[in-house]
Amino acid sequence: MKEFELIKEFFTAQPVSRKDVAMGIGDDCALIRANDNKLIAVTTDTLVAGVHFPLNTPARAVGHKAVAVNLSDIAAMGAEPAWISVAITLPEVDEEWLREFTAGMFELTEYFNVQLIGGDTTQGPLSITITAQGLVPEDKALCRNGAQNGDYLFVTGDFGDAGLALAAINGQIKLNETDFARVKAKLDYPQPQVLVGQMIREFATSAIDVSDGLLADLGHICRASTLGVAINVEDIPLSKALTDNLSAEDAINMALTSGDDYQLIFSVPATNKVGIETAMAHANVAFNCIGQLNTSEEINLTYKKKPFVVKKVGFEHFSVKA
Amino acid sequence: MKEFELIKEFFTAQPVSRKDVAMGIGDDCALIRANDNKLIAVTTDTLVAGVHFPLNTPARAVGHKAVAVNLSDIAAMGAEPAWISVAITLPEVDEEWLREFTAGMFELTEYFNVQLIGGDTTQGPLSITITAQGLVPEDKALCRNGAQNGDYLFVTGDFGDAGLALAAINGQIKLNETDFARVKAKLDYPQPQVLVGQMIREFATSAIDVSDGLLADLGHICRASTLGVAINVEDIPLSKALTDNLSAEDAINMALTSGDDYQLIFSVPATNKVGIETAMAHANVAFNCIGQLNTSEEINLTYKKKPFVVKKVGFEHFSVKA
Repeated sequence: MKEFELIKEFFTAQPVSRKDVAMGIGDDCALIRANDNKLIAVTTDTLVAGVHFPLNTPARAVGHKAVAVNLSDIAAMGAEPAWISVAITLPEVDEEWLREFTAGMFELTEYFNVQLIGGDTTQGPLSITITAQGLVPEDKALCRNGAQNGDYLFVTGDFGDAGLALAAINGQIKLNETDFARVKAKLDYPQPQVLVGQMIREFATSAIDVSDGLLADLGHICRASTLGVAINVEDIPLSKALTDNLSAEDAINMALTSGDDYQLIFSVPATNKVGIETAMAHANVAFNCIGQLNTSEEINLTYKKKPFVVKKVGFEHFSVKA
Repeated sequence: MKEFELIKEFFTAQPVSRKDVAMGIGDDCALIRANDNKLIAVTTDTLVAGVHFPLNTPARAVGHKAVAVNLSDIAAMGAEPAWISVAITLPEVDEEWLREFTAGMFELTEYFNVQLIGGDTTQGPLSITITAQGLVPEDKALCRNGAQNGDYLFVTGDFGDAGLALAAINGQIKLNETDFARVKAKLDYPQPQVLVGQMIREFATSAIDVSDGLLADLGHICRASTLGVAINVEDIPLSKALTDNLSAEDAINMALTSGDDYQLIFSVPATNKVGIETAMAHANVAFNCIGQLNTSEEINLTYKKKPFVVKKVGFEHFSVKA
């Protein structure tokens, strides 16, 4: 369909032009150059309307989020994002929607100096698949299986706001206008911890980003590293909106089990604990130590020195990352 | 959904393990290594059920074709394919379907030594987005804009069979059982010209693969190189099924305008003409010289020394490659 040529124009108008892109959009393939003996980190994530974001989500937020969830995976490897390819399936060509969608994408790609190098457009129910790639020094990549017994467990930012927003959208909870606007912005415009990812790779032994929920994603580190962890749940950072609107226990449950936070969880050996705390403080990054890894191969939660029983385990949307 | 863990198992059971993959499936990102100062060719293609393949296409064919169309883009750059990421949206988890789908994918990836390095699975109407990557020496990549005035225009294989199959499926033409089986196999199991792509990069100035139709894709080379071309349409290779079932003129029209052939079109300077003809003959590859590039910026078709008027320009499915 001729009108789909329009999309090409929107895609070609992207703001970043990297020196390591020998050929961008417009040929059978893009051509990129990886130098300095760095590894390339590659991730692919699909967002489906009605599954990964509510159907009435603004186009700008959809574009932002589609890029953000992929850059969050790049950040979790300690890599610096460089290139993305975008495949979009659209019910129809809506110029205004596309303008907002690409604006949402490009705000993030411009900020992080990421070049859009290719894409494909097809007709169908709205979904977006992005493949993002980044660069990381060979010995600095943060994998899930690197955590060591005794490592301290850190998290960035706070947890549960995106879950609170979803609960409000689904009518399970009522929020005042200010709180709803605040948590809705966290759900729609997650900020991938790209710079933090590159900072912690000097100190951490493992990392993962939180897309499915703190507990669920922490489980991936434990399984991959054959370790357990003891968590003091009162140390989990909660936003003011969460503590204002939920009981202490519900807020912790929300923080542990709801998804879409896109914060980082990472493990740091005792010898690097002061180093990373100093670095994070100097960079003005919000972070907390919430526990310590052990050989139990279980996640043990303690609240005010008593075992904490989780009410809902994980917000599991219909998506499995292979 | 727990059942989606099943897909992870199918994906993890892939046959290829490359030395340049430092981390495969199972972390936030895969980690790959590009060495020898090669460029990385990156392409993304989506196949939507009912748009890019008929709804009742066997799962094995869907898996094969999803990989083939991407490897065909890699071939058209003269690159050697290395890695793919697969995002699949499925209406439901059907173990038998998945077994066949992955078998179809892995037949091709194993043959060409391509490793599946990641993926994502979501629920929805059937579609598959693959990002394929390959390696090509920096000065050997075959772009669309490299053709020179006076270059000879070559094609691999023959044209129109996939279009004939679609016409039969759509009830526009009746074929006998043998012919239908033959052309249906061409439609369902296209063979990407991966080895030819790497061979011609030593001789050719430009290349493109034929997905939208010989004429439409040739137009991309002409526009990108600011050239025209004179074609003797009687030199376009046609299959026996095509000439047996259509008039001479209809067969040529089908070959020129129907898509899904996944052959290569490439331009070769006069000084390399004998060289490439010798190389192709020794490699036992079917190929033909169908014309010569000129400065007209038009595609001129001649049939038995008279101008040939095309009846249907391009099989345009609802897809634009950015």
